[in-house]
Amino acid sequence: MTLPSTMAGLIAPRAVAVIGASDDVTRIGGRPIAAMLRAGFKGRILPVNPKRDIVQGLTCYPDIDALPEAPDAALIAVPAALVPETIEALGRRGCKAATLFSAGFAETGDEGDQAQRDMLALARRVGVRLLGPNTLGIYNVGIGYYGTFSSSLDTGLPIAGSIGIASQSGAFGAHLGALARDRGLGCSVLITTGNEADITVSDAIRWMAEDDGTRVICAYMEAVNDAPALLDALDAARAAGKPVLVLKSGRSEVGARAAASHTASLTGDAVVADAVLGEHGAIMLRDPQSMMDIAYAASGGVRPSRRSLGVITVSGGAGIVISDEAERIGLPMPALPDAAQARLKQVLPYCAPANPLDCTAQALNDPSLLETFTRTALEDGGYGAILCFLTYVAGSPAMSDRILQAILPLRRAYPDRLIAFCALGPPEVLRRYDQAGILVFDDPCRATRALDAVLRMAEPPAPTSRPDPGPAIALPATTPDEAASKALLSEFGIASTPERAVADADGAVRAAEHLGYPVVLKILSPDILHKSDISAVRLNLHDPDAVRQAHAEIQQAAATHVPDARINGVLVARQMPQGVECLMGVHRDPNFGPVAVFGLGGIFVELLNDVAVRTCPFDAQTARQMILSIRGAAILQGARGQPPVDLDALSRMLSRLSVFAAAAGPRLASVDLNPVLALPDGAFALDAVIELTQDGEPDADRS
Amino acid sequence: MTLPSTMAGLIAPRAVAVIGASDDVTRIGGRPIAAMLRAGFKGRILPVNPKRDIVQGLTCYPDIDALPEAPDAALIAVPAALVPETIEALGRRGCKAATLFSAGFAETGDEGDQAQRDMLALARRVGVRLLGPNTLGIYNVGIGYYGTFSSSLDTGLPIAGSIGIASQSGAFGAHLGALARDRGLGCSVLITTGNEADITVSDAIRWMAEDDGTRVICAYMEAVNDAPALLDALDAARAAGKPVLVLKSGRSEVGARAAASHTASLTGDAVVADAVLGEHGAIMLRDPQSMMDIAYAASGGVRPSRRSLGVITVSGGAGIVISDEAERIGLPMPALPDAAQARLKQVLPYCAPANPLDCTAQALNDPSLLETFTRTALEDGGYGAILCFLTYVAGSPAMSDRILQAILPLRRAYPDRLIAFCALGPPEVLRRYDQAGILVFDDPCRATRALDAVLRMAEPPAPTSRPDPGPAIALPATTPDEAASKALLSEFGIASTPERAVADADGAVRAAEHLGYPVVLKILSPDILHKSDISAVRLNLHDPDAVRQAHAEIQQAAATHVPDARINGVLVARQMPQGVECLMGVHRDPNFGPVAVFGLGGIFVELLNDVAVRTCPFDAQTARQMILSIRGAAILQGARGQPPVDLDALSRMLSRLSVFAAAAGPRLASVDLNPVLALPDGAFALDAVIELTQDGEPDADRS
Repeated sequence: MTLPSTMAGLIAPRAVAVIGASDDVTRIGGRPIAAMLRAGFKGRILPVNPKRDIVQGLTCYPDIDALPEAPDAALIAVPAALVPETIEALGRRGCKAATLFSAGFAETGDEGDQAQRDMLALARRVGVRLLGPNTLGIYNVGIGYYGTFSSSLDTGLPIAGSIGIASQSGAFGAHLGALARDRGLGCSVLITTGNEADITVSDAIRWMAEDDGTRVICAYMEAVNDAPALLDALDAARAAGKPVLVLKSGRSEVGARAAASHTASLTGDAVVADAVLGEHGAIMLRDPQSMMDIAYAASGGVRPSRRSLGVITVSGGAGIVISDEAERIGLPMPALPDAAQARLKQVLPYCAPANPLDCTAQALNDPSLLETFTRTALEDGGYGAILCFLTYVAGSPAMSDRILQAILPLRRAYPDRLIAFCALGPPEVLRRYDQAGILVFDDPCRATRALDAVLRMAEPPAPTSRPDPGPAIALPATTPDEAASKALLSEFGIASTPERAVADADGAVRAAEHLGYPVVLKILSPDILHKSDISAVRLNLHDPDAVRQAHAEIQQAAATHVPDARINGVLVARQMPQGVECLMGVHRDPNFGPVAVFGLGGIFVELLNDVAVRTCPFDAQTARQMILSIRGAAILQGARGQPPVDLDALSRMLSRLSVFAAAAGPRLASVDLNPVLALPDGAFALDAVIELTQDGEPDADRS
Repeated sequence: MTLPSTMAGLIAPRAVAVIGASDDVTRIGGRPIAAMLRAGFKGRILPVNPKRDIVQGLTCYPDIDALPEAPDAALIAVPAALVPETIEALGRRGCKAATLFSAGFAETGDEGDQAQRDMLALARRVGVRLLGPNTLGIYNVGIGYYGTFSSSLDTGLPIAGSIGIASQSGAFGAHLGALARDRGLGCSVLITTGNEADITVSDAIRWMAEDDGTRVICAYMEAVNDAPALLDALDAARAAGKPVLVLKSGRSEVGARAAASHTASLTGDAVVADAVLGEHGAIMLRDPQSMMDIAYAASGGVRPSRRSLGVITVSGGAGIVISDEAERIGLPMPALPDAAQARLKQVLPYCAPANPLDCTAQALNDPSLLETFTRTALEDGGYGAILCFLTYVAGSPAMSDRILQAILPLRRAYPDRLIAFCALGPPEVLRRYDQAGILVFDDPCRATRALDAVLRMAEPPAPTSRPDPGPAIALPATTPDEAASKALLSEFGIASTPERAVADADGAVRAAEHLGYPVVLKILSPDILHKSDISAVRLNLHDPDAVRQAHAEIQQAAATHVPDARINGVLVARQMPQGVECLMGVHRDPNFGPVAVFGLGGIFVELLNDVAVRTCPFDAQTARQMILSIRGAAILQGARGQPPVDLDALSRMLSRLSVFAAAAGPRLASVDLNPVLALPDGAFALDAVIELTQDGEPDADRS
């Protein structure tokens, strides 16, 4: 369904009805009116309350039918039991969008959940879009619209600006809004989505992507309730050049438990969400401070093309602390060209002119030194961002004006660069830098991280190239055994080790002689997926006796551990040379559909969680980026004197697996290729496990 | 040498002479006097300047000899050339300590370095201890002593309190002081050590460890110039129960380069410094913000014995964000006991009572709910720290008094617990909580990290148990080959694989038959230490032919790659079963002497830098803690269905290696046991490389 026009009515109404309007400015039905009057809302406020003629000085209407016009939006502040008739009346009166403060729906349990479903069905029938229920509401600073009862407004109204905030949590969204205000940052809109019966945080992001007043989007979410809409919204923001900063909580066990009780919805796998949202350009964060730091640094709209940092400092120590932080996060700090260094040495013999550029405490008395060093860094260093560590000097009333006059011409001459100060001092002194387009941070490391985040925005990840998966794959009726799994995958171009399925010990010896010693023996059964766990695998068999003995042992192991298993014989495979063991898999994520995972074998995955994740399908070039993005990638590229592995073959295999998953459809629960042996020439799956969903029960069979 | 009495004179003088005193309050010789007059310095200020009778209203003396008393300290603000005669005069007049603002010494190059050495020799001769040269100076807030020319005082004097700051960088130290002041935090002293010709940051820490006015010590350092003194100072602070927060910069390549140019001293290996200082109880940090956060949280002196966090929140979302952060840093958030949860449910049916305890937006209007939930968390949850997420509500003038009255009785009733608010609002409103002993943070994640740091202080690391290394070891005259190295180590109880050194191929076959197939062959030469690099190792040889062929190949490899090498034959070793490959080593750190390193083999060390480091010697119990502290430790404990390795044997070996290093003395440059094979029963060095220093040139031979 298309949203824009109803969303515009919801977020920027020309007329808003307040159902359950109150004269008491501390009540839910009174707060929004009071805030709008205080802020000078540019539209019409239409209070509705059968018991009053006037509310807060405004004409009040006895019921919705009596309204003098069809409002663009309504605020509903009546008890849950009265909500259905209210929505029905709004529909009748031609109102298309309502913000539903009322609680007592899905967040209270099964009964409330049913009430919410019934209400949504009614709202759809009468053509009213809903924000909420159980929402703290919305505000739109530019037009003075306050469809919210948040008490955060008690300590002041927000400052108008370009940061948009979307939040599933009302209080946390309002906290972000208050944090921005207290830091002097300007906001465009705040939209909190409550129970998300209808309109979701994705819809809010989508709207902000198209809103001219919003330049940076901050989103807080606990659950992904509509993955395709979320990814669409992220794509729209990326296309509009607007960064989306996402704080996705519910990572921890405790956090996920709290999230479930809080939003009445399951939190998806955090690693997958990070990867998939990141794939669509979202900047994934963990704390509100870094969100505000980055939003602030990005809100000026400056997007330097060169990701490098030049540091000017009056303290050698601070220059080192900043250099350490830049290296930790991978932000390049190239040295100034030699000629420019020599020029600075002439100006100030004891300076350190490389980068950091230490213009020493002399600059404390002579802002022209600061000007000279900063100009040189901009002109000769060409840095995308400049960070000047000026500490308390910048905040000194005696110095601040001279510093501002020294830097202002440079700010104007290089509009495409970020210029930031690390400064301490009275807020009113520091605000003047800010107003001149110079970013101000009190902490040098936070400044470094925020600048880096903005520098990275110049090259957001390109949309994933999606190969056509081709015709649907005919999956077998039941879970295939290893040999059948490998055969199915090999039709898709996914190679496994040379091997044969055989029925008995004699067959195993014949197969071994055909393949060449040494060989590997594995039990072959659709009922035993994880063979190593029950000792039904034997490696490095050098002769017929060893093959016969191994055959007997694995039969015994299977009979002991899984007595009812159907045994299809054994698999004899050539023992492969030493290589790098990798892991590849796909599984169906409940939110995002099939996602592929790549990692190095064993510990890297299990202890370090060092994996790359992406939605399927994707091409080999994308697969290669995934493979090279893991921390352990150096192992594949020839670390420790080993030859590099065949990255082309490995990338092709991962891409083919992703296409397989897309073509296989929802009956495919998962594929595990573990290990995949990456060799200097080729890559081979040593094992393959395909799991299918039970009929009609997607995901029931996931392990 | 003993410091206390001179240090007391330097830091808390009863009388201070200002050499080069000025009437101009913006000059180096004028600023300290102005600041002391402004702050009401409790001692006597004695200006010295031949050109004036009165300076800033004080009697001025023409020269040092004319001073009416022997000052406890002098501030020297004269050009470098006049410094020697000034120091001589001070000694003559009985002044024992001087703070030397003058620049132009070691920081300027070789000539200045020599001038600094000459000056130090003179100072020692005349009995004057020196702070500096090139120092920004010192302040002692409680007595109003400002022996500093820092312009950070232009925006206000520090607040008196219990945080002490020691810094090698003047401007960065003053930045920390200004940051504390702007955050409303109280300081005891600031000591900046400049070039550290004499008094170092270690001396400053040592003094603060004994200073009654200092409760938390913050130290910024770029280089460790006197390792034993630093470790002594850390031990003294630990014994006094005072946490030492250390920001040690110069980790990055750029940072180390800048540090070298800044302090005229080499920065030691950051990993070693982190480990060794941490071993002595220092809390190692990377940024000033977390230093101030932790200093603030620790400065009240509350040290809960139970490391657990209870979270009270008015926003489910914030509760989740905090839970995520707590899990990320390993801070336990156990659930409230069931009975207590049930009681809270009776009070507020829709609350989430586990932990986080969500008392919902209802608490916004009813602070008694906040009281009930917080009391329950303290009483029934027993949490060491409580974090209440109150956001803008706590800062609301209408609510703040009621909130304070609700919490104050609990603050008094539980003096041994940390109570913190995450709160936004006007500073004057928030300061009232602070004054009541409630910590205030604007960011919930920073609050969580700071509380965790203080909770960890209850159990600082115990001093390392140091076994007696026994008599010195007679090292060979020249670098030993592998067989000799292993023999030397085996006398110390460090086991290696069963093996024999042989002269030729026939000998190799005889040795293989004695040891049992399969075997390993390695070249044996004192000139080839890293055998694998030149393919002079062959593994898994199953029969005499394979042994003969391998013998020929490795002779050829050695002849090709190191034609001049002395070849002592080959080493035949039993091929060991599969186990976990580890790495152990010791090397002589230029600052801290022999340090031992343990890690898992290969990638864990090379890619992830996942190692434990400690100064030698230490006992097996300590070794075990080191081994279990690495991230990959699970691999040793039986991850992936493997049997656990013999941790006792591994720990014993690491401890013995540390004792060996201590007993071997400074001629030992390093020992590398790589790999060490950890088996379920036993641990064996598969290779051993001992490197010795060249005669009289310690460290010259380090690789």
